[in-house]
Amino acid sequence: MICLLSLSTLGMVAFSQEREKAIEKILLDQVVAWNAGDIEGYMKGYWNSDSTVFLSGGNLTRGYNNVLSRYKKSYDTRDKMGQLEFTELRIRMMAPTLGVATGVWRLHRAKDQPWGRFTLLVEQKPEGWRIVHDHTSSAN
Amino acid sequence: MICLLSLSTLGMVAFSQEREKAIEKILLDQVVAWNAGDIEGYMKGYWNSDSTVFLSGGNLTRGYNNVLSRYKKSYDTRDKMGQLEFTELRIRMMAPTLGVATGVWRLHRAKDQPWGRFTLLVEQKPEGWRIVHDHTSSAN
Repeated sequence: MICLLSLSTLGMVAFSQEREKAIEKILLDQVVAWNAGDIEGYMKGYWNSDSTVFLSGGNLTRGYNNVLSRYKKSYDTRDKMGQLEFTELRIRMMAPTLGVATGVWRLHRAKDQPWGRFTLLVEQKPEGWRIVHDHTSSAN
Repeated sequence: MICLLSLSTLGMVAFSQEREKAIEKILLDQVVAWNAGDIEGYMKGYWNSDSTVFLSGGNLTRGYNNVLSRYKKSYDTRDKMGQLEFTELRIRMMAPTLGVATGVWRLHRAKDQPWGRFTLLVEQKPEGWRIVHDHTSSAN
């Protein structure tokens, strides 16, 4: 019985780690796309839905297309995009189909290196793991 | 059968609304405590755990006691605390025991009115609904 419980626990841990890895992959794929200047590719990490939310500072942007427009407007040149780096990435499963990812974002640019922290809610959708809620803040 | 399904759906909606109300109450109780100058009372909304996380700007504070210390240090006078107001409060259940609350916070103070947005993960614990993760950002 103890052995069975341990195996079951191990199985759950392995399953959780697998999901955390799947979420991590989505975020690392975003970094690769961003650093190739591909905002549409970067946006593939987000859920393509009107209820996807992006919060930053005092702003709230609701809906995938509005989030995409915001990114395109804020980062309309490769210089502004710079090179994105995620550090201190930490993923925790909150439910079988929901993880929360936190980390530090940093843009390496010629003139500055803005950075801050993010909290992402990443949900398993039929099309894969997708960010449904992004709260990003800037250090200053 | 259609009737049964409808009743079941109605039951689920009612259950979800009940939990959203319970989460809302935790947050409104926090506002009452804050506005009475009671930071310990305000902190009752947070999970008393070493894994409770508070993110703001570029800072990450982990652990209930560290979050409490941070609040006490940042708001060591009634003038600094001001009067707290939450608006645009929106609660969405992500799982049976997990809700995400977003809203606008504002401090009405004599000299300024700082404000911004928050994302709270609120989880049902044996002691009640508690904030396990707080990402707060400032407008400006």
